[in-house]
Amino acid sequence: MIIDLRSDTITKPTPAMREAMFSAEVGDDVFGDDPSVNALEEKAARMFGMEAALFCASGTMTNQLAIRTHCRPGDDVICDVLSHIYLYEGGGIAVNALASVSLPQGERGKLTPELVRAHIQPDDIHKPATRLVSLENTINKGGGCYYTIPEIAAIRQVCDEHGLKLHLDGARLFNALVETGESPESYGNLFDSISICLSKGLGCPVGSLLLGSRDFIKQARRFRKLMGGGWRQAGFLAAAGSYALDHHVNRLKLDHARARKIGQMLEKLPEVEEIFPIETNIVIFRLPETILAADYVNQLDQKGIKAVTFGKHLVRFVTHLDFTDEMLEQLELRFR
Amino acid sequence: MIIDLRSDTITKPTPAMREAMFSAEVGDDVFGDDPSVNALEEKAARMFGMEAALFCASGTMTNQLAIRTHCRPGDDVICDVLSHIYLYEGGGIAVNALASVSLPQGERGKLTPELVRAHIQPDDIHKPATRLVSLENTINKGGGCYYTIPEIAAIRQVCDEHGLKLHLDGARLFNALVETGESPESYGNLFDSISICLSKGLGCPVGSLLLGSRDFIKQARRFRKLMGGGWRQAGFLAAAGSYALDHHVNRLKLDHARARKIGQMLEKLPEVEEIFPIETNIVIFRLPETILAADYVNQLDQKGIKAVTFGKHLVRFVTHLDFTDEMLEQLELRFR
Amino acid sequence: MIIDLRSDTITKPTPAMREAMFSAEVGDDVFGDDPSVNALEEKAARMFGMEAALFCASGTMTNQLAIRTHCRPGDDVICDVLSHIYLYEGGGIAVNALASVSLPQGERGKLTPELVRAHIQPDDIHKPATRLVSLENTINKGGGCYYTIPEIAAIRQVCDEHGLKLHLDGARLFNALVETGESPESYGNLFDSISICLSKGLGCPVGSLLLGSRDFIKQARRFRKLMGGGWRQAGFLAAAGSYALDHHVNRLKLDHARARKIGQMLEKLPEVEEIFPIETNIVIFRLPETILAADYVNQLDQKGIKAVTFGKHLVRFVTHLDFTDEMLEQLELRFR
Amino acid sequence: MIIDLRSDTITKPTPAMREAMFSAEVGDDVFGDDPSVNALEEKAARMFGMEAALFCASGTMTNQLAIRTHCRPGDDVICDVLSHIYLYEGGGIAVNALASVSLPQGERGKLTPELVRAHIQPDDIHKPATRLVSLENTINKGGGCYYTIPEIAAIRQVCDEHGLKLHLDGARLFNALVETGESPESYGNLFDSISICLSKGLGCPVGSLLLGSRDFIKQARRFRKLMGGGWRQAGFLAAAGSYALDHHVNRLKLDHARARKIGQMLEKLPEVEEIFPIETNIVIFRLPETILAADYVNQLDQKGIKAVTFGKHLVRFVTHLDFTDEMLEQLELRFR
Repeated sequence: MIIDLRSDTITKPTPAMREAMFSAEVGDDVFGDDPSVNALEEKAARMFGMEAALFCASGTMTNQLAIRTHCRPGDDVICDVLSHIYLYEGGGIAVNALASVSLPQGERGKLTPELVRAHIQPDDIHKPATRLVSLENTINKGGGCYYTIPEIAAIRQVCDEHGLKLHLDGARLFNALVETGESPESYGNLFDSISICLSKGLGCPVGSLLLGSRDFIKQARRFRKLMGGGWRQAGFLAAAGSYALDHHVNRLKLDHARARKIGQMLEKLPEVEEIFPIETNIVIFRLPETILAADYVNQLDQKGIKAVTFGKHLVRFVTHLDFTDEMLEQLELRFR
Repeated sequence: MIIDLRSDTITKPTPAMREAMFSAEVGDDVFGDDPSVNALEEKAARMFGMEAALFCASGTMTNQLAIRTHCRPGDDVICDVLSHIYLYEGGGIAVNALASVSLPQGERGKLTPELVRAHIQPDDIHKPATRLVSLENTINKGGGCYYTIPEIAAIRQVCDEHGLKLHLDGARLFNALVETGESPESYGNLFDSISICLSKGLGCPVGSLLLGSRDFIKQARRFRKLMGGGWRQAGFLAAAGSYALDHHVNRLKLDHARARKIGQMLEKLPEVEEIFPIETNIVIFRLPETILAADYVNQLDQKGIKAVTFGKHLVRFVTHLDFTDEMLEQLELRFR
Repeated sequence: MIIDLRSDTITKPTPAMREAMFSAEVGDDVFGDDPSVNALEEKAARMFGMEAALFCASGTMTNQLAIRTHCRPGDDVICDVLSHIYLYEGGGIAVNALASVSLPQGERGKLTPELVRAHIQPDDIHKPATRLVSLENTINKGGGCYYTIPEIAAIRQVCDEHGLKLHLDGARLFNALVETGESPESYGNLFDSISICLSKGLGCPVGSLLLGSRDFIKQARRFRKLMGGGWRQAGFLAAAGSYALDHHVNRLKLDHARARKIGQMLEKLPEVEEIFPIETNIVIFRLPETILAADYVNQLDQKGIKAVTFGKHLVRFVTHLDFTDEMLEQLELRFR
Repeated sequence: MIIDLRSDTITKPTPAMREAMFSAEVGDDVFGDDPSVNALEEKAARMFGMEAALFCASGTMTNQLAIRTHCRPGDDVICDVLSHIYLYEGGGIAVNALASVSLPQGERGKLTPELVRAHIQPDDIHKPATRLVSLENTINKGGGCYYTIPEIAAIRQVCDEHGLKLHLDGARLFNALVETGESPESYGNLFDSISICLSKGLGCPVGSLLLGSRDFIKQARRFRKLMGGGWRQAGFLAAAGSYALDHHVNRLKLDHARARKIGQMLEKLPEVEEIFPIETNIVIFRLPETILAADYVNQLDQKGIKAVTFGKHLVRFVTHLDFTDEMLEQLELRFR
């Protein structure tokens, strides 16, 4: 039995989700004719109290659409130096939006009002013009840590004072919500745009949603088209999304519990120097200077455990829908 | 019964294709782990005698990836003024590749060696640098007309003389192939990159393939990622693609025969001034100056016939997998 | 004696202009401290009844700044297929503004309200969004022909109806003004931005001005900086500009008269098949199919006459400040 | 008497430099016809042992041309977080080159081989592709500190190992050269491109030079044109440049000596908490938390001393050609 903890993106649809997909009614989404896509977009927009939504092929697409729709060339984006949009989207901020980055170094990837304020550019032709602040929640590189609403509200206020837009990369937002008990709607009030991912913890095969105002989504839809992100009978995938929003949100708590159990196992391993606080479904741990993460991951692989390196001496596990209690037990055995 | 002739993109998977999708083995394609995607990419590359392929969400994505991979900012693309990449991809040539266009006016959208040669820029700092020639086959705005291999080979020669790349927008290439009897492999020899669409005549829900050399596809894959075109368990869609390549190519002849029959019906309509030669599955006809295409399309809609305008006085029908002989008969009745 | 009719850009400052340059007071323009630059910008803005101006290194820079300031990526620019911004600015519309082009074919490069209207894009995600119409006056490729105010006003009205911006590439605007007797101020009312060139007919060594609203120029100044167009003690060049606006406008009539005389000479040459109507300081003539313009220009060069090719069988002469009556006589002798 | 220490860009040409400008032979540089421009470009290329040079309007233009010529969209540039190209060029790296940045934090802005190596991206589609390393010498934000040849050679080696290009922002390179006694030619061997500025310490009114291989400069010239950086009779400015290279290099030592004397004066001021080591012509000092640099600069201004803020509590002075011993004495008096 392979225990694959590389990412929560690797899950395969459950039988029930497959059933939802293959009974889906579809149509040509480029003509606006796919009922399953339309239903998903409406469902998600309503859930977050936002006007409109756009169903896309990936979270990178929804993030990049948001950035290029908010910004014009020569603008500046404030995001933590650990954020996914800066580190893992292929340099898309520059390529897609022709925008620069200002990169505060928050604690485990979390921005604060002070950090944001200190990175707003002055009105000076030598400088790009600050336009957008982007938060990530939960924070992948921060080990799955999360913001609370009051923390976000304080940053929103700085944005309002300076006329800045606020975007959320909510690739794992539902992981935060099930921990804090906060509502999606409270998020809709705080952000100009939100990206949520269906193919991570929620277990869909493909898909993310971009949420925002009607005008914003209209412009994003234009950009999506010229990037080639318009798709035809995407309803098969959208149906999985609707199913996941209905059935796969609450169960994320199970992933979090299992992650904490992995943390307890790791504490007993002599080679583990430090474990990042485990707040959701991500476990990051540090190896000593003498062990390269790449070598360690290879050794795990030989034991049938898959993980990814997350720095020269950091390793990441992610729990997910296809990681079961049985695997958890197996994991403990193999760690010994 | 609605008779929808707006586009061959509107088809829905057949039961057998759904079955292929439903039973597909999938994995995380971003990690290269989706066996159905890998199989489709290998199958298509082999079919065209090219080194590698990339499965994408749309033909616009494969075209735009090709253009931006071939070109650098400040380059110039030669394509017919009627080509899809110029007219219907949202201005993507400029946005994605920062490339300019030179727009010869061929007959029904077909370039010739002379037209290409006449539009190659001189080596002059006032001018963008010609880098790419792009052909479309069949040609949508040309009423589905097509190139033959010798016509393409002559253009290839001009490209070779001037060190230019040659791309094919083969959104409806299989429609040309079933008419000419030419092989996919003969195309692979002539082009630096080929885009083929699975969701038009071939009847898949979503997907196109970009074909090229290993290095070219590697770079295109990078660009796809930063545009957000990387997707996870895309194998459900890829399985439909493999099925279509096996089962839906030869049947395109049926669509062509039905298109010609529609042409015969149109000849009897007094308001039809001109019908473009019908070579494949597209029928374009011209109305008199006194009738706006938009009005005419509305009238058709009231009779349960769906079409699109294709100019102020032009209307387009496209036959496809979901357009049956029964509908053909109905169409005749409604035309009367 | 070399008779150089390649362009009106080749002139060298007169002694009086040199004197104005070398007695100029200068400062650091990036700090806003150059009094000669400031004076020129104010003078030009006032002359055209516009709020602000920006002194730049070339007409290409002022045009490109205007386009990128008006447009955002994915927008569409309507300009005649013969316009300088499309033909001679290195593909800058795509590179600098990521904008597409719609290219009406007016008579000798002149747009009409009907042509503009016919090229406005519908609100459709397959299409770029029309944002800007750009006129050129006088029209280089049109043989120096010009628009009148009523012609422009009719195009302005179409722009207003569709919420479009209107830019003027006025590289040779003063040539039009001295012919029509129209005022600069009447132009300021009709355009959102105007580019005028000081180094063509006006005889300055370097420089163009971009005119527009205060906000527009502020944003253009930002873009100028990141393109590297900000310069330090540019007042030496600006002083030449102010001198030229005071002393070199009216004398353009002389250039026009000399151009017409060249036209009369050309009429007598058997190899000249057609001469474009000569309205200002540009003379374009057509050679028969049997004579390549490149060869003809070489032959002229051997007689000490410099010209440029303007198409496969077209040759262009431009009269200017350094082209004298004596040279005109010489030209006649050499033509025989 | 105003003592202006804001920047070495503010200098005005000396009478002898004006004389050189005034008597310059000029021509149309876009046609390659300006003898003074050609002479300057050849002189500079020879001086640095490089194949070709390009005379431009600013150091931002030469830097940005280098970056966009080396990189294609989606590439990554490694430069210190304090570098001018990142901090003071309006976000041009993203806008002009569509390139991302990796931002090591060297000591006072100086990269090391280790820092460079640690920031090279792996071959991973989630990441931009490292293409270029850019150094600055002397380093403005580092208080005018400089690299030595062996330090640069070690970085060059890392670049060679990884197939990376190496660019030098040499805005104040001559300040480094007069201190180290190293030759310009030794620099030419180490870099793929070098930008040097003529309007800083060298005292020219306008202009910078980009140096590189013939092919590189040819491509940069293309990009310069589409940015609008091509200029006509630029020889007046180029003549100043040639004069400066002949006469104003060695005297930079005077500026350095004066800067050190300013440092001695500052040591006596109670409000000065820290003075950055003074290696060339830049003096940066830190005020206590209780004094804002902006306020302090205003107070200096009232005493007729001009400076710029360089951070919330940092102030910068720059000595230059127009800063005399008399002013130095005055400065001491006013400090008391």
